[in-house]
Amino acid sequence: MDAKKAISPLYTDMYQLTMGQAYFLNNRHEQKACFDYFFRKTPFEGGYTIFAGLADLLAHIEALRFLKQDIDYLHKKGFHADYLEFLKGFRFSGQITGMQEGEVVFPVSPILRAEGGLLEVQLIETLLLNMLNFQSLIATKASRIRQSAGERILSDFGLRRAQGMGGIQASRASIIGGFDSTSNLLAAQQNDIPPAGTMAHSFIESYNDELEAFRAYAGVFPDNCVLLVDTYNTLKSGLPNAMKVAKELEKSGHRLKGIRLDSGDLAYLSKKARLMLDEAGLTYVRIVVSNQLDEHVVKSLLDQQAPIDIFGVGTNMITGRPDGAIDGVYKLSSSHGSPRLKISENIQKTTLPGLKKVLRYLDDDHNFYADCIALEKETEPEQMIHPFFKEKTLSLKGRKYEELFRCHMRHGKITKDMLGPFKLKELVKNRLEKLPDEHKRFDFPHIYKVGISAQLCDLRDEIVNRYQNYI
Amino acid sequence: MDAKKAISPLYTDMYQLTMGQAYFLNNRHEQKACFDYFFRKTPFEGGYTIFAGLADLLAHIEALRFLKQDIDYLHKKGFHADYLEFLKGFRFSGQITGMQEGEVVFPVSPILRAEGGLLEVQLIETLLLNMLNFQSLIATKASRIRQSAGERILSDFGLRRAQGMGGIQASRASIIGGFDSTSNLLAAQQNDIPPAGTMAHSFIESYNDELEAFRAYAGVFPDNCVLLVDTYNTLKSGLPNAMKVAKELEKSGHRLKGIRLDSGDLAYLSKKARLMLDEAGLTYVRIVVSNQLDEHVVKSLLDQQAPIDIFGVGTNMITGRPDGAIDGVYKLSSSHGSPRLKISENIQKTTLPGLKKVLRYLDDDHNFYADCIALEKETEPEQMIHPFFKEKTLSLKGRKYEELFRCHMRHGKITKDMLGPFKLKELVKNRLEKLPDEHKRFDFPHIYKVGISAQLCDLRDEIVNRYQNYI
Repeated sequence: MDAKKAISPLYTDMYQLTMGQAYFLNNRHEQKACFDYFFRKTPFEGGYTIFAGLADLLAHIEALRFLKQDIDYLHKKGFHADYLEFLKGFRFSGQITGMQEGEVVFPVSPILRAEGGLLEVQLIETLLLNMLNFQSLIATKASRIRQSAGERILSDFGLRRAQGMGGIQASRASIIGGFDSTSNLLAAQQNDIPPAGTMAHSFIESYNDELEAFRAYAGVFPDNCVLLVDTYNTLKSGLPNAMKVAKELEKSGHRLKGIRLDSGDLAYLSKKARLMLDEAGLTYVRIVVSNQLDEHVVKSLLDQQAPIDIFGVGTNMITGRPDGAIDGVYKLSSSHGSPRLKISENIQKTTLPGLKKVLRYLDDDHNFYADCIALEKETEPEQMIHPFFKEKTLSLKGRKYEELFRCHMRHGKITKDMLGPFKLKELVKNRLEKLPDEHKRFDFPHIYKVGISAQLCDLRDEIVNRYQNYI
Repeated sequence: MDAKKAISPLYTDMYQLTMGQAYFLNNRHEQKACFDYFFRKTPFEGGYTIFAGLADLLAHIEALRFLKQDIDYLHKKGFHADYLEFLKGFRFSGQITGMQEGEVVFPVSPILRAEGGLLEVQLIETLLLNMLNFQSLIATKASRIRQSAGERILSDFGLRRAQGMGGIQASRASIIGGFDSTSNLLAAQQNDIPPAGTMAHSFIESYNDELEAFRAYAGVFPDNCVLLVDTYNTLKSGLPNAMKVAKELEKSGHRLKGIRLDSGDLAYLSKKARLMLDEAGLTYVRIVVSNQLDEHVVKSLLDQQAPIDIFGVGTNMITGRPDGAIDGVYKLSSSHGSPRLKISENIQKTTLPGLKKVLRYLDDDHNFYADCIALEKETEPEQMIHPFFKEKTLSLKGRKYEELFRCHMRHGKITKDMLGPFKLKELVKNRLEKLPDEHKRFDFPHIYKVGISAQLCDLRDEIVNRYQNYI
């Protein structure tokens, strides 16, 4: 990664650095440790989550350096001179193992684990959570909208309502989830995404006459012209004027690309518009719609047979409404070679100890059947146990499975070329096809089975008992 | 602004640049125009919004430049050579007028207006909306939490759940809204905010023994030590161990700063903890709580007399849950010296034409009474009219008022030093004190009166009629 693009190591929570100093001055900073990344609740009351943000995260971890201005700031804030000297030469040298970006993932199951010295694996926590939680949220939202839209074109129009600079990362994640283009030029440039967009109402209003405005725009972009038709009156003014311009373009050997509807009843107006366009022989002119779309509105429009070709989706996608965040956490699972867990009065919040992997079992049609969390060194478990209700078990005997964990970073270096957003989009599509439909529906989706191996279950019980005796 | 910190001019919607090309090639780019920034709905079903993000926005507009890599990208995307030549030398040279950052603002009322050449005022739209919508959302959320917290300390703990890099801007906005510190070190460095944070559960779990972990941390930070007491069992283990360490610190002339509760019933646990601490003579040890806080939870805790000194607030503040976005828009109000509006079948979406200002009328106690939107050149209006229901009027005769609009940028240069986030926090506090309580309550707040002058109302009617005749 270009050093100029690397994010500051101060893009973290203060406590990562105070804990680091305590580890360092107590000479525990190189003690071996492992942390797991996982989340507890699927966003949008849905049945699955798309894991995204990994390529960005790894690039930033690989490039993590404390520059002079960072050290100077920490010095001013009272950090210890020896520790700062250590930070000057700091490089992340650990190992990151886990699921591939674009994987379909579920609550409780570890998605990544980071192993290395205690200080270095602690230090990356905030960066990791910030990037993975957010991009996974947006990729998941985008994939739900993709589900509703079928093969139609989806374009991200969200930057103006995005949460500040988060908009850039959200545009990338929207492609992973299934979008085709973005209005955000910087995200387009950085991720090689086709940029999209033509005109706003202000363009038309800046002329005295709608037709004059349309002609002016079509003159400059005769082959990439989508006319916004709802500035004054969609059916009485915008469409007739757009059709005039389309006919004029035909005469000069061009074709009007589309018309855009941004207000009113999009089902009614798109049907009327299609009829008018078709009757004028303009069957090739595409209908673009925008205005407060989400997976539910898109589904409703298409259920009503609205003849829409392109959806421009803004606020609800770019901010992951209504959830706004995935509750992903990063928890210590091993320290000094011993498995660790965070105990809680709520068994659902007690974490899973030890170095783990995830096996995805397949049904007879090779579709996803259940995920089993096992200890790293286990061979195939014969059954899995519900993570919180031990009496619920599931036999895995004779079932085919996939190993979901692979090594992404070793000795602080990314181990292979990361996929770009469009390759990831293909991967998401392929993986989602293997997820049975009942997990993909919006209302009360069937809960995908995630369990733990008997060995992992025993280990957790043993440590919990030990802690309870300690108290 | 440091050129390295300036955001790319590609941080915008594609259509700003395509419209720009159409204006340029039609030689309309220098035609005088004015746009208004306003929003239609107060977030969080509340009674007010805090306007934030202005200093950031102005700095970025002043620094806006197309560098070689930007021009190269636009060239690759097919933009016209003459237009790109023009963009190479582009500087924003317009004027920005409006309310001060930190102002208490309301729907419908213009907050800012941007005047200049059509191309330049169009070009800044996405940047303006992205920055103002988001920072205003977060400042408003933070101010609601501040209302609940009274004089207690509020710290932003949100970076791990923030929407990517938006977290940096959110931390700044949280201070404006009333927070005191942030865990986000980069936001702290950039905005001179006190950074806050001490330890996570993993620190304690990385030791075999909780007491040993506490001692190790206190040894390194004897004067800035907040011990997290809920790793194993708050009342049976965490607190007794923290109290031991507090006594040990006393012997070496130091004082334990606080204990932190991050799970369980925070009202019950904080009361028990206060009692135990006080009985041990540790009345100075402060109680910090975190875990899914928002304005409602903080209010409930304090209604229960929970003896909490410091609240660490994360997800709900940093993402502006549950709304996630303010619907702020930027609409053309004047072009070629003529007032313009965007017509809509919905009168509430028809915009207000012409160059405008806002007068804030005061009640007899000098508190905020009503905002009147008037034409720039008007003298004091005698009454105001409801923006959508003309039969509703309010007499303004003899009332004192404040002019809320001032010039922020002239000929593309910021006209005065912008206030830092802590100065803005003071300003917000002072302004909110003048807003009557009934507009500040969380449940069904009284709607603050915003109206338009008779002259503005007449102008709107006249233009709407003209458009209707045109169609």
